[in-house]
Amino acid sequence: MLPLCGLSTMPIPSNRSYAEQLDAHDSLAGFRQRFLIPDAGIIYLDGNSLGRPPLAAVELALNLVEQQWGERLIRQWNEGWFGLPETIGAKIAGLIGAQADEVLVADSTSVNLFKLVVAALRARPGRRRILTDDLNFPSDVYILQGAIDLLGQEHRLEIVPSPDGVHGPAASLAASCDADTALVVLSHTVFKSGYTYDMRALSWAAAAAGALVLWDLSHSAGVVPVDLTGAGADLAVGCTYKYLNGGPGAPAFLYIRRDWQPKLANPLAGWMGHEAPFAFDLDYRPSSGLRRFLTGTPPVASLALVEPGVDLLLEAGMDAVRAKSVQQTEYLVALYDGFLAPLGYTLKSPRDPSRRGSHISLGHNEALRIDQVLIHDFGILPDFRRPDNIRLGLAPLYTSFTDIHRTVMALCQIAEERLYEAYPVEAPVVT
Amino acid sequence: MLPLCGLSTMPIPSNRSYAEQLDAHDSLAGFRQRFLIPDAGIIYLDGNSLGRPPLAAVELALNLVEQQWGERLIRQWNEGWFGLPETIGAKIAGLIGAQADEVLVADSTSVNLFKLVVAALRARPGRRRILTDDLNFPSDVYILQGAIDLLGQEHRLEIVPSPDGVHGPAASLAASCDADTALVVLSHTVFKSGYTYDMRALSWAAAAAGALVLWDLSHSAGVVPVDLTGAGADLAVGCTYKYLNGGPGAPAFLYIRRDWQPKLANPLAGWMGHEAPFAFDLDYRPSSGLRRFLTGTPPVASLALVEPGVDLLLEAGMDAVRAKSVQQTEYLVALYDGFLAPLGYTLKSPRDPSRRGSHISLGHNEALRIDQVLIHDFGILPDFRRPDNIRLGLAPLYTSFTDIHRTVMALCQIAEERLYEAYPVEAPVVT
Repeated sequence: MLPLCGLSTMPIPSNRSYAEQLDAHDSLAGFRQRFLIPDAGIIYLDGNSLGRPPLAAVELALNLVEQQWGERLIRQWNEGWFGLPETIGAKIAGLIGAQADEVLVADSTSVNLFKLVVAALRARPGRRRILTDDLNFPSDVYILQGAIDLLGQEHRLEIVPSPDGVHGPAASLAASCDADTALVVLSHTVFKSGYTYDMRALSWAAAAAGALVLWDLSHSAGVVPVDLTGAGADLAVGCTYKYLNGGPGAPAFLYIRRDWQPKLANPLAGWMGHEAPFAFDLDYRPSSGLRRFLTGTPPVASLALVEPGVDLLLEAGMDAVRAKSVQQTEYLVALYDGFLAPLGYTLKSPRDPSRRGSHISLGHNEALRIDQVLIHDFGILPDFRRPDNIRLGLAPLYTSFTDIHRTVMALCQIAEERLYEAYPVEAPVVT
Repeated sequence: MLPLCGLSTMPIPSNRSYAEQLDAHDSLAGFRQRFLIPDAGIIYLDGNSLGRPPLAAVELALNLVEQQWGERLIRQWNEGWFGLPETIGAKIAGLIGAQADEVLVADSTSVNLFKLVVAALRARPGRRRILTDDLNFPSDVYILQGAIDLLGQEHRLEIVPSPDGVHGPAASLAASCDADTALVVLSHTVFKSGYTYDMRALSWAAAAAGALVLWDLSHSAGVVPVDLTGAGADLAVGCTYKYLNGGPGAPAFLYIRRDWQPKLANPLAGWMGHEAPFAFDLDYRPSSGLRRFLTGTPPVASLALVEPGVDLLLEAGMDAVRAKSVQQTEYLVALYDGFLAPLGYTLKSPRDPSRRGSHISLGHNEALRIDQVLIHDFGILPDFRRPDNIRLGLAPLYTSFTDIHRTVMALCQIAEERLYEAYPVEAPVVT
């Protein structure tokens, strides 16, 4: 059989020079130079798991250790560190449609989720139901289960199933909100398929029933337009190391709408959230603002390194980022239709770009071994989610159209030539 | 009045050349060159709050961003990051008398404390009393209050008062442990006076009553000998940015004695503690080992930077570190007796070195303004704890005897010449 590659008659031009033309007309193309890319031979499609380092992060890392820690020593707490959770939070607010004083950077996504879930459940006494879906990131579900265990037996978690494993059960969730519903907790963009909820519609459905809604923005922040204020969202959390390019395990953010802030209590009340941390009173008095949701001393090096990536996104503008993201996922889906569908690949992400984030999941009977071929033989780094999701994350600030074209050509060749047969069936999975 | 400085007839030689002789005979003196000390004019006596950066941390910070994050990208999770909580934990275990698989680095001290307190209280159902003292770090008390609130009304926190604000109420605490006591939570070395509990005696008293004991080692780890195994301690937490020199807000450690590990459940159960994190099951199954006490993704940059400081302490050896620490606090107390006591300073730390950590707190009616003079006019950085504690932290790996001598001479001059009068009464407090 002749290889299909390059022979498709699909309406979108399929040759490499078309990808190069798209890159030449890409108004964000220059941002790629603002990232540290030491090995230009690698195609990196895992920015949805760990974004690349901004160049400015290298300089900042040195400055943090040499000047801030080494020279200013303890004085740097008053000269900048103490305010970092709020100053970086205020910048992230500009990416997710929140007010500057509604976002704080602290702890991990899971720990922040715990704080907000417990606070929200206490703010809705008597209501027993907590709704989520089966596409949510499992750690979020574990945290919900743990919080319910702690609060006693009155609450129950209801995991509403997706109709097809790809799309969120939006209509079922909206219809499920009732007077016994305390809280709806969802990933705005889900981690496997990349399905994105209509935040406004679901936030309103929850509000109409008197329930609170909490959005995990981990796969949305920095790539999908989010308007927390416009959507009337109550609460949110999200991670900073994916499309925000904050660095491995960088601290997460939390959002509490301004009117909720004085009404919610942090169950992990620690000294950083005290009204007067350096009074060292034995009685806890929460800070009047959002700082009450801080707990312990923040990991400054990881925290400070969040800022350069956020700055790049603010400079690029979320409208431009989203426009390129949609153009790129549409391009990838078109190439999938032309080249990959005939070779046994399946599309495991929504076709409607308005309901899709910035990664595309492809399935294949040999997905795990194909993933290994991509990594080891082609220098293409996707990620993989069991059982058979090859996730291709497109980060508009540094992913090129040529990257996408080359990846599709590689997937094509791997399937046609059965290159995966060189790998064992149970290959190790790169996280 | 003639200045006292240099004229004392105290038994310990009080002149500068004696300090220089002590430095010349200090077997650990060479370790000072292993730290980044960009401004040699500063005398830094706040290593009990934020230790100095090891030189190796500079190189590591660059490597983390450029090679690990920039070049290896997501692959670095499998090539090292995933194991960091355990590998660095195992090294810290060597400093605190624990087994390698009993210590984990994760989250902040406060968050770790919450996890262990809730787990411990659930392991002692029916027992209602939780004991601590009024010298404990306030954030620890806030966390206890928060955990009790969450678990319902059956528990009550009893804060046993210190007899004198300096020494811990060890005898009262031991006598208070009874069949209704679930948990005893104490700072091993307390943050203001530096008093150090006899860990073994109190752990045994708790155990004899069937209660668990949880030690906060923040002001002990890396400078005070700790033998968790020998003491029969159940649980511990501690911070890494003080005498371990891990960097600002670096993640904390937690210790769970091996036999407790399978019996305790993490109330902040997250994906990093799952038996198979990458299976992405919706049901939580705790890891069989200590990893079950992980929660979210760790802040890798801050976490990795903990290792160089721990390595230096392992190289120096805790016996040598402790010997120098005692020699230095004894020297400082002797100089206090000779020079400072007559000038209105008071000693707010224990005289018995076996009950003392590695910082000395001095009081004075003008303590806050004296602190400002030290910082701004003498380039000496102590820290200050309200209302009147000037804390002088001695970090044996980089504090010299000459540093101590010069500091005492400065304190002497400031009081004699009333230099503090140049500062406003309500000066800002450096953290």
